[in-house]
This record gives sequence, structure tokens and C-alpha cells, in this order.
Amino acid sequence: MKKSIAIDMDGVIADTETQFINWYERDYGVRIKPTEIIGLKEDEMFPDKTAVRKFAFTPGFFRTLPVMQGAVESVKALMESFEVYIVSAAMEFPQSLPEKAEWLKEHFPFIDWRHIVFCGDKSIINTDYMIDDHVKNLDYFNGTTIIFHAFHNINFNHHQRVSNWEEVLVLMEKERYL
Amino acid sequence: MKKSIAIDMDGVIADTETQFINWYERDYGVRIKPTEIIGLKEDEMFPDKTAVRKFAFTPGFFRTLPVMQGAVESVKALMESFEVYIVSAAMEFPQSLPEKAEWLKEHFPFIDWRHIVFCGDKSIINTDYMIDDHVKNLDYFNGTTIIFHAFHNINFNHHQRVSNWEEVLVLMEKERYL
Repeated sequence: MKKSIAIDMDGVIADTETQFINWYERDYGVRIKPTEIIGLKEDEMFPDKTAVRKFAFTPGFFRTLPVMQGAVESVKALMESFEVYIVSAAMEFPQSLPEKAEWLKEHFPFIDWRHIVFCGDKSIINTDYMIDDHVKNLDYFNGTTIIFHAFHNINFNHHQRVSNWEEVLVLMEKERYL
Repeated sequence: MKKSIAIDMDGVIADTETQFINWYERDYGVRIKPTEIIGLKEDEMFPDKTAVRKFAFTPGFFRTLPVMQGAVESVKALMESFEVYIVSAAMEFPQSLPEKAEWLKEHFPFIDWRHIVFCGDKSIINTDYMIDDHVKNLDYFNGTTIIFHAFHNINFNHHQRVSNWEEVLVLMEKERYL
């Protein structure tokens, strides 16, 4: 039986950081450099601390997220050796639910609806691996954890870290023989 | 630590059977009696076999489902002794996602968004108990299974059966001391 992986959406296959920075520039006229926010929390990344939650509740935000570089080909490759589930903690933003479903259908049409999960917290998710950018999701997970690099998680070093999708593939190529 | 329960929506806390029968009468002019459909599959419950899926894809179907008798008070009571998660295999019907979120907010406002899961199949759900009307969800579950009576599951006898919410409370009252 194939081993299973729960793959997060925001910050892992969807590039929320770029969308946040672009929207902040559009609405506030200030372009924040990625280097300026290293180590900050997501809701503290901008001078206006209310901006991130406001954007996340704005219709269209999740529907128009850029795809993370390399994610499409990498997820497709992983599906050859693993049962891949997309698991997104989307429930805090109810308007995001149909947007995320449509986004996946557009960019990852090869992922069956049976393998998509939208949840609140991820504590009841049971897969062999979890790839996520949020420590709060990884810390309560029983399987093998992989933290996907993001500006807000740079100071946490208690999970195996990958910097990009290329590194995910290198790591999981070894895991498939374990 | 409290034990956890995954509680299904359709057919368990939401009365899909009544809604299907009412909508069929409204659209086809024929009222099917609950006794006529005992033992039939859900998609074979009406003379027009396409009706059930058509209704399930119709905007408003899930938003206007009647609440199953006794469900609100019983779920509230269970929450005193258990971690309750609402877990619905909603992903096949993407339009149902915001409808189900709104329905829960209206009828079960005491359930935190962190405890709501919309998924495809339920094979990666990890709780101590699962209450569901569908054998396909219970059969692959690792914890204790409880089948909630429905016309379409009457011939399956390999899970502990409850006929209504009163029986759930009686059963779980014993379980909390295990």
C-alpha cells in the first residue's frame, strides 16, 4: 500500500506571501521586500497589522493565488509513489471554501475530490507524512513532519525543513524506499 | 484527555431523507413513503434515478436541510464529555461547502470552526469514534464505529447500530466511562 502525504495549500502549493505583498502594495502604496519580513508572524508582516486578515476575508483572495513554483509538477510526481491528500485549514474563512475548490480544479485538475480535505485544526488528520508551513499544524501530527520554508517559520527548527518543491522531491525520493 | 468523535452531517444531524422526499413530491408530484424505500440505495430511492444527484447539486439543497430530531441537544450534551468533530464528505458537491458552513452556523452555533471538517473520503480521519450512516465511511475507520439508522443501510449489520439520537446518548453515556 502506498504511504500517504497530507499537503497544505497556503504557503506550500499556493503562494500566499506573494499575493499578500502584491495586495498590500495595491491598497497601501507600499511594497514590502521579502527580506524585511523574515522571522515575523504572518499577521505582523505589514505596518498595518489588520491587512492580512482583511485580505484573507476578501472574496477573490484565495481564488487568485499564484501557484507556488514547482508545485504542480512535484505533486504530480509524488502521486506516482504516494497517496496524496490536499489538506487545508480553510474553515476559519468560509468564503474561501468554494474558491479553494475551484483553484484546485484549475491548477491541480489531476487531484480527485476524494483526496481533498478542508478542516479547522489538523489534529484529526491521519497520514504518514505532513508537509506544512505552520508549526501549529505539524506539532500535533503523529506521522513524519516536513516544514515548508516560509518567512514566518524560519525560527522553528524542530521539524525536517525543505526550502522549495525541488527539495521535497529529493527528500521524498529517499522516503519511498523506507 | 477527552475522547474524540467524528459526527457525520447528512443523514445524521441533517435530515436528507425528508428533504429528498419533499423535493421529489414538489418536482415530480409523487410522494414516496419512507416505508417504500427501506433497503434501497440512496440513488435508487425514487422512480427517476437521476433525481437524488440532481437535488444534491442544486443550490439551496444543503442550506435548507431540516435538522435531525434531537441532534442539537444531543451534540451539545456529547460535547461535555467528548471532543466533537463534524466531519462531512462534502467535496463531491463543491456548491455545498459554504451552504454547509452556514447551516452549521445557524443550527449548531456552539461548534467551533476548528472542529469542522469537509472532506472527500474519510479514510484519513483519526478520531476515537465515528457516527455515520454510510458503511463506506465506517468500514475504513480505525476507531469505534457507530452506524446511524437510515433506509439505505438497514441491511448492513457489521457496525454497532443506533436508531436515533436518544440511542446515541445512551450508548455514549456508557462509553465515557471506558
